[in-house]
Amino acid sequence: MSVDANCLFCTIITGQIPSQRIDEDDRTVTFMDINPGSTGHALIVPKQHTRDLLAIGQDDLTACAVTAQRITRRAVQALGAEGVNLINCCGSVAWQTVFHFHLHMVPRYSDDGFHLPWVSTPGDPAAIAAAANKLCVCV
Amino acid sequence: MSVDANCLFCTIITGQIPSQRIDEDDRTVTFMDINPGSTGHALIVPKQHTRDLLAIGQDDLTACAVTAQRITRRAVQALGAEGVNLINCCGSVAWQTVFHFHLHMVPRYSDDGFHLPWVSTPGDPAAIAAAANKLCVCV
Repeated sequence: MSVDANCLFCTIITGQIPSQRIDEDDRTVTFMDINPGSTGHALIVPKQHTRDLLAIGQDDLTACAVTAQRITRRAVQALGAEGVNLINCCGSVAWQTVFHFHLHMVPRYSDDGFHLPWVSTPGDPAAIAAAANKLCVCV
Repeated sequence: MSVDANCLFCTIITGQIPSQRIDEDDRTVTFMDINPGSTGHALIVPKQHTRDLLAIGQDDLTACAVTAQRITRRAVQALGAEGVNLINCCGSVAWQTVFHFHLHMVPRYSDDGFHLPWVSTPGDPAAIAAAANKLCVCV
């Protein structure tokens, strides 16, 4: 297991820094966010140190997704969450502040006052097509 | 393959409604969001109809995660995205509007003006511990 001594989440995983741990399996650990957006906000991380979504191995990525689903179901059942957002932040510009891959599991409640981070309005079809052409693998 | 004739994304997957499709594999299809938050905003969906994160099977969930990583790498390489947010919305209260599981792949740029949807400030330790106790599986 690769551990980065300078990584906050690695020190949480190894127990050097305390956390409210709520789940653990072979590949993942889940603990509470100390700056929660809502009641039950938790972070799912791979035990293996890996910087972000670009770098994480598929086995760890899929293990985190499966854990996130498990924690989501618990948030609905045990906390009465009315919904959940799973969010990964990849890169500083995307709000990543700890550079150890993590998924935010953010329970949602009708009175939480969250706002969608982007404005959802019809885009310019030509601009969408231009981006699609760059992203496309010619399906 | 289970298809819901009343589901917008099922009709996109089957081709009855056109889309800008940028990727496809055995289990997933990826197409452009027509209400994009940023240049390159795409949606990763399982071919199999499934309502949301609570209902999706693990094979489809992990396939969507792997596809999302592939599209994320392409967004960085081909579009010059400086970061990416992956977002799943589970439930109306969490901004889900189409009830066919999907992951948003939202490329991020330093001038995009997005705001974190929650306020990130230290939470009340007792409240965090109470939520943790409800979510915990006694690790």
